Amino acid sequence: MNFLEQRIVKDGAVKPGNVLKVDCFLNHQMDVELLAEIGKEFKRRFANKKINKVLTIEASGIAIAAFVAKEFGVPFVFAKKSKSVNIDGDVFSATVESFTHKCTNTVIVSKKFLNSNDHVLIIDDFLANGCALQGLISIVEESGATVEGIGIAIEKGFQSGGEIIRTAGYQLESLAIVEAMDDKKGTIEFRKQ
Amino acid sequence: MNFLEQRIVKDGAVKPGNVLKVDCFLNHQMDVELLAEIGKEFKRRFANKKINKVLTIEASGIAIAAFVAKEFGVPFVFAKKSKSVNIDGDVFSATVESFTHKCTNTVIVSKKFLNSNDHVLIIDDFLANGCALQGLISIVEESGATVEGIGIAIEKGFQSGGEIIRTAGYQLESLAIVEAMDDKKGTIEFRKQ
Repeated sequence: MNFLEQRIVKDGAVKPGNVLKVDCFLNHQMDVELLAEIGKEFKRRFANKKINKVLTIEASGIAIAAFVAKEFGVPFVFAKKSKSVNIDGDVFSATVESFTHKCTNTVIVSKKFLNSNDHVLIIDDFLANGCALQGLISIVEESGATVEGIGIAIEKGFQSGGEIIRTAGYQLESLAIVEAMDDKKGTIEFRKQ
Repeated sequence: MNFLEQRIVKDGAVKPGNVLKVDCFLNHQMDVELLAEIGKEFKRRFANKKINKVLTIEASGIAIAAFVAKEFGVPFVFAKKSKSVNIDGDVFSATVESFTHKCTNTVIVSKKFLNSNDHVLIIDDFLANGCALQGLISIVEESGATVEGIGIAIEKGFQSGGEIIRTAGYQLESLAIVEAMDDKKGTIEFRKQ
């Protein structure tokens, strides 16, 4: 097991409905030493890519993206969730369904911060069905920028998002891929990488 | 002028209605070198305080809090905005009015992550009327933890938040305090500190 898988086993909690709670170190209370290590690991995995910008989505992707961007020495941009359907012409936008929160968000990025010269590494904390990620990909492609890669902390390998994204040809690197969880036994099985 | 004031003058934009746009380096596209410098400056200003946790609020406070927490070698927690009025017993909550977004949010922190042993540094990007900050202070005090200090990147000194918080006895450190702005001339006047 790598450092993140070890931490998930130690401090994560499996809840009914295939919910993996990692709120004590990754998406409510944040362990900055772990975040810094995640940043270094993504730098290693995308070392051969020419990346000049990191893109994530609010809120829990922000802290991870910050440490990844620090490693690459580039700025990061976070897409904002907007309830408004009246999006003006100054933003790229995508519609994203959230199964966790049972709602639909419009996600926006100012046109000032993405253009055809950008080589983008997309970062997020979780990948399940991939709705949020596909929204970010569509925003990058609308801008004319290039998706150089996608870095995810925890992928739910038993949901379809990862396979769809990999089949589409993107370099998707997930630090921990959960194949199965059992909330009664509290066990988590990771994909061998 | 300090490093943040210089950056505001260089890259900020004054808009009608006393709006200061810093979205190219502080709250949409993020300059991680600047964030790291902000982290170091807050470490210097609160060096004499025993701080074991940093608290902020989603979304734009998160990246600043991450670098501050890294400097102190402690975890950070971000308060989540919730539209739900049905808050369960496992969270501390406060009601926060947003003048920017013209709405009221309930802000929540899990009771797992704040208790009477905690010595908290509150961090946010902006302070204007102080509603969000007072919500965070009330959450810390409800938990029995101690507010050791408050670090703000940009304070609008012509609004009442800063004075209310300082009068209440908190050590509030704002890296840049804007006294006046003129959107026609594009000028910004900072408080001498």
